[in-house]
Amino acid sequence: MIIRMKKNASEADIATVEKRIVQAGLKASISRGESLVIIGVIGDITRLERDVIAEISGVEEITRVSRPYKLVSREFNPTDKQIKIRNVIVGKGNFTFIAGPCAVESRDQMLATARIVKKAQCQLLRGGAYKPRTNPYSFQGLGEEGLQYLKEASVETGLPIVTEVTGADKIEPVMKYADVIQIGTRNMRSYDLLQQIGEHTSETQMPVLLKRGDNATIEEFLSAAEYIAKAGNENIILCLRGIRTFESGSFIRNTADIGIIPVLKKETGLPVIFDPSHAAGKRDIIPSYSLAAVAAGADGLIIETHYSPQTARCDGEQSLSENELNETVSSCRHMLKFLRQS
Amino acid sequence: MIIRMKKNASEADIATVEKRIVQAGLKASISRGESLVIIGVIGDITRLERDVIAEISGVEEITRVSRPYKLVSREFNPTDKQIKIRNVIVGKGNFTFIAGPCAVESRDQMLATARIVKKAQCQLLRGGAYKPRTNPYSFQGLGEEGLQYLKEASVETGLPIVTEVTGADKIEPVMKYADVIQIGTRNMRSYDLLQQIGEHTSETQMPVLLKRGDNATIEEFLSAAEYIAKAGNENIILCLRGIRTFESGSFIRNTADIGIIPVLKKETGLPVIFDPSHAAGKRDIIPSYSLAAVAAGADGLIIETHYSPQTARCDGEQSLSENELNETVSSCRHMLKFLRQS
Amino acid sequence: MIIRMKKNASEADIATVEKRIVQAGLKASISRGESLVIIGVIGDITRLERDVIAEISGVEEITRVSRPYKLVSREFNPTDKQIKIRNVIVGKGNFTFIAGPCAVESRDQMLATARIVKKAQCQLLRGGAYKPRTNPYSFQGLGEEGLQYLKEASVETGLPIVTEVTGADKIEPVMKYADVIQIGTRNMRSYDLLQQIGEHTSETQMPVLLKRGDNATIEEFLSAAEYIAKAGNENIILCLRGIRTFESGSFIRNTADIGIIPVLKKETGLPVIFDPSHAAGKRDIIPSYSLAAVAAGADGLIIETHYSPQTARCDGEQSLSENELNETVSSCRHMLKFLRQS
Amino acid sequence: MIIRMKKNASEADIATVEKRIVQAGLKASISRGESLVIIGVIGDITRLERDVIAEISGVEEITRVSRPYKLVSREFNPTDKQIKIRNVIVGKGNFTFIAGPCAVESRDQMLATARIVKKAQCQLLRGGAYKPRTNPYSFQGLGEEGLQYLKEASVETGLPIVTEVTGADKIEPVMKYADVIQIGTRNMRSYDLLQQIGEHTSETQMPVLLKRGDNATIEEFLSAAEYIAKAGNENIILCLRGIRTFESGSFIRNTADIGIIPVLKKETGLPVIFDPSHAAGKRDIIPSYSLAAVAAGADGLIIETHYSPQTARCDGEQSLSENELNETVSSCRHMLKFLRQS
Repeated sequence: MIIRMKKNASEADIATVEKRIVQAGLKASISRGESLVIIGVIGDITRLERDVIAEISGVEEITRVSRPYKLVSREFNPTDKQIKIRNVIVGKGNFTFIAGPCAVESRDQMLATARIVKKAQCQLLRGGAYKPRTNPYSFQGLGEEGLQYLKEASVETGLPIVTEVTGADKIEPVMKYADVIQIGTRNMRSYDLLQQIGEHTSETQMPVLLKRGDNATIEEFLSAAEYIAKAGNENIILCLRGIRTFESGSFIRNTADIGIIPVLKKETGLPVIFDPSHAAGKRDIIPSYSLAAVAAGADGLIIETHYSPQTARCDGEQSLSENELNETVSSCRHMLKFLRQS
Repeated sequence: MIIRMKKNASEADIATVEKRIVQAGLKASISRGESLVIIGVIGDITRLERDVIAEISGVEEITRVSRPYKLVSREFNPTDKQIKIRNVIVGKGNFTFIAGPCAVESRDQMLATARIVKKAQCQLLRGGAYKPRTNPYSFQGLGEEGLQYLKEASVETGLPIVTEVTGADKIEPVMKYADVIQIGTRNMRSYDLLQQIGEHTSETQMPVLLKRGDNATIEEFLSAAEYIAKAGNENIILCLRGIRTFESGSFIRNTADIGIIPVLKKETGLPVIFDPSHAAGKRDIIPSYSLAAVAAGADGLIIETHYSPQTARCDGEQSLSENELNETVSSCRHMLKFLRQS
Repeated sequence: MIIRMKKNASEADIATVEKRIVQAGLKASISRGESLVIIGVIGDITRLERDVIAEISGVEEITRVSRPYKLVSREFNPTDKQIKIRNVIVGKGNFTFIAGPCAVESRDQMLATARIVKKAQCQLLRGGAYKPRTNPYSFQGLGEEGLQYLKEASVETGLPIVTEVTGADKIEPVMKYADVIQIGTRNMRSYDLLQQIGEHTSETQMPVLLKRGDNATIEEFLSAAEYIAKAGNENIILCLRGIRTFESGSFIRNTADIGIIPVLKKETGLPVIFDPSHAAGKRDIIPSYSLAAVAAGADGLIIETHYSPQTARCDGEQSLSENELNETVSSCRHMLKFLRQS
Repeated sequence: MIIRMKKNASEADIATVEKRIVQAGLKASISRGESLVIIGVIGDITRLERDVIAEISGVEEITRVSRPYKLVSREFNPTDKQIKIRNVIVGKGNFTFIAGPCAVESRDQMLATARIVKKAQCQLLRGGAYKPRTNPYSFQGLGEEGLQYLKEASVETGLPIVTEVTGADKIEPVMKYADVIQIGTRNMRSYDLLQQIGEHTSETQMPVLLKRGDNATIEEFLSAAEYIAKAGNENIILCLRGIRTFESGSFIRNTADIGIIPVLKKETGLPVIFDPSHAAGKRDIIPSYSLAAVAAGADGLIIETHYSPQTARCDGEQSLSENELNETVSSCRHMLKFLRQS
């Protein structure tokens, strides 16, 4: 439920509304614009009589939000969210390149790849220390050792780190090293984990990069973001990475959900980035996917890169080499410049 | 099976290969490049002994093509196909805008809309006289009367016509009026119809615009094109229009298959166009889909337009108004110019 | 729109309703039960003012049917449909076994397989003379020659024939030989073909076996049946055969839609049969699928059988041998007996 | 990798094989049948030279297992697994009925429903204390309070408890009260959680009921089970509950994966049960789904029941009333008896 106050509503009116919400066992989230005060009601609104609110002086309009997400909705937060990661700004007109290996494999691999990412003028460094693998016998990442190599690469290059948390017990170690916590596609519907990440980061407001589940609907994706926001952290970057359909197979790894970019931009003010590597699964179509995502309105790209894709321990087939990364970033930058002019 | 001849292969060698193929009850399709002769074998190649061919002098290499399409494959026809429709050229570096209403509704509607299409500098006019509708009680199109209005609009504006054939008995009437025969998504796997269209157009080589079935794999889509090519007409324009997944619903009509554009461009030299209207299903995201398709490498767009979308008898929600069409075409043209420079 | 007349409504009242419907350019379909007259309105009901009908004496209730199918709906025809094929009765409590090869390959193969089908006490013989194949270079069936072998096998065994029509020009030849016309999964949305089959059979009322499109929704499936019914033939047998999902792959060919059987039985009175062969794609799981379909309430099974599955020209992997067919039919019969007792 | 030893292989041979495996940093799992010793190699087998093993005396055959699951595969464990839950035996020819409410709502609701479950002669009691909900504002379960009510109901009725763990911090509380730990569809790919549950239960061997992810392939489902087995607990019950396809909508909640039952029974010896409630989503088709699952070879059913479905706080639409539960269980029992006789 969203309550819009009249322009001349007094602070006392606002306080009364808040009080009634709290009395019903719910939470009020007050958003003050220049000339507008909007109060969101969080919790099971069936407990709140609409009439009880409507009769309070100063209340202009009450809207029932039927969708299960509020805090992350554009309806509730009409402006674009801007997220600061050290000196990098994501969203609200800024375009961000995130690159790095699928998995941290060794100190050398991580440093060599980070230097490539830095030279290509990407702004954030990715790399997985904890890898959720379908095959329980596949390489599962280096764990905290991997985080240390990531950190070393970050210190050398100055690039902030994005890395994945795969379970509740990894939240603290990752928060110690990373600048952005990533939630992977397989965990997007692990609501407990989402909530715990929201709670653990509610104080520091460390940004969270949430990947879309490969069969999550748009509503489910935004509801997953809402779990984090509701737990206290609205610094969320949404990441599309392809979905699973009847097609996934020899030509492509997933079905690229480029077309969801403008849909999300309508529904939410959160930054929306695209992962062409997992969508494509094949190196040679990643440049086209990157350009298409830029044209569709994405706020950034997260690209898998490796200093030596042929010897990568995971996802080498979809990792760009140094030259390929340079060319992809450069052509995207050109297109961004063009789009801003027009 | 694809047979590559040696550079110094004689005409007699080529004739011998052809003879052996024919003796096996198969068809030989000979393609002569500047310094290269390639012979495709069409038919059930299990009947042909590989050794019988390999021992003929002048034969360089025999490749088993495991995929069920040959004539339309880039492997067999490495260069981009160029298709001429009166004075319009589709493919091979040309970008084509096709626009018009979902259905021809009346003479006035068709003429008014065609003028908008012309003014927006689109090159081809679309409009359905035969409409395949899921609901048997919905408006099914004006039939031949609709073709006459289309023709009148074409004569006035000079725009060639693209219109759909929904059954074998509509091939002849449509060929009388149209410049390009469209096969809709629901009929992509009606192989009989594809073959008949291929046969009927084998003499005139009237181009065929083939839409991807909404659950067709890439291999099935190209195999459907192969049916037409094999029947005698290789002037085929492939059209992506969104697929059906778990998502199709309130936010979008279909899942946009923009990511298939570069995959098809690798696999085939046929022109690949995109239909943002059916993919999106909502007017306001069509411009983003159009730009993304351009960036992904499409050879054209087919866009639903109506002089009065609010009163359209079908698909009004996804039809652009005059202003929207102008803006979309104009921003796509700007992006094309940019892409050609870079 | 469905109009229910009062119990004491006169013939004159009924005639008046019919007249108003016809005046609006629509068709009235009058269904007389023992004490109940129901009038279905067929066509674009937006042309008919509800009030015009409501004020006619004898009208009890007017129901807007929002679903796009009427004639085939249980709402309109509450009782189970019974379809007579020579001396075989399908539906309304009868269970029918249909068996035979995927494709008619030769006279000998057809006769040998038909004898197996007869011995197993199946009631109908299937076999494809026209085969719609994804690969244009695969065996496409023997055509009319195949129909002749089918007929010969039918004459010898006394089993009526079910065989597929793949295009409009095959309707007449198939009607000459067959007892039931099959429409395959790839043509379920070829509405023109459905309508033509409905029209061609409107006089003889030859039954039509309609297979569900492999990505058709339940509503689309029933709407496709409605196309045939609306064209004049309501003798329709619905056939489920598995759908395409993310799973289709090495373990199974399609995702068995056994769960749709009870859903269809609620929605329509038409017989609903199941094709375990195409759903499974593997011989060894066909018996389980058959039993599950019986338990779920199917009215019959259509099973691929071959006198020599190892040498079958198509779909051998999913064809039962003589022994396997006998065992499957026998265990299904036992279960049917059990279900009727309980 | 699976190593089959010769019949006359000595203990020394076996020890040598084991030593080589351990030297390569891998784990050996030795399985001794009456006349057969099989050694499974667990870990990244790329580190192990096949020849190193092949030359050891006593080694008969080395099989590379390409699928990512071993411990749970029938290839490795050919016999059916039997799982004991207090006095209830699941699997290996035993059929188990599990019933109870979607969520524990109150002490009274839980007790009233448990009595119904007991009277219907079901063997296990289900009920969610932690509910993973798509909508963050929906009722999320009573937590530990719910577990206490469950326990009380269990004590009174003597029925063992199945209840869901939604995050790592719930493992300990659930283990305190429950007899079987359930992992829900949304967490099937939360590999960290699976592993932790496997580790926490490795000592007690408390059984785990693993639900298939609603877009998990068969291989992924079995790999998820492998995570638990590899962590030390092979007492796993697999549960199918419907998948998400293009159909999920007004007629059904999910697409029933009844057809996967016989496929899983081929691939694994673990018990396979079916959840008709989540597959159907509608009360009236649950009986048909239950019978079909029995006919397809399931080892049990898990059915949502409520003493008052109309007032249930979640999933009331798919909860059976007392009468409906009695009838469903009774008709399934009849069918089981029939199937065992035939």
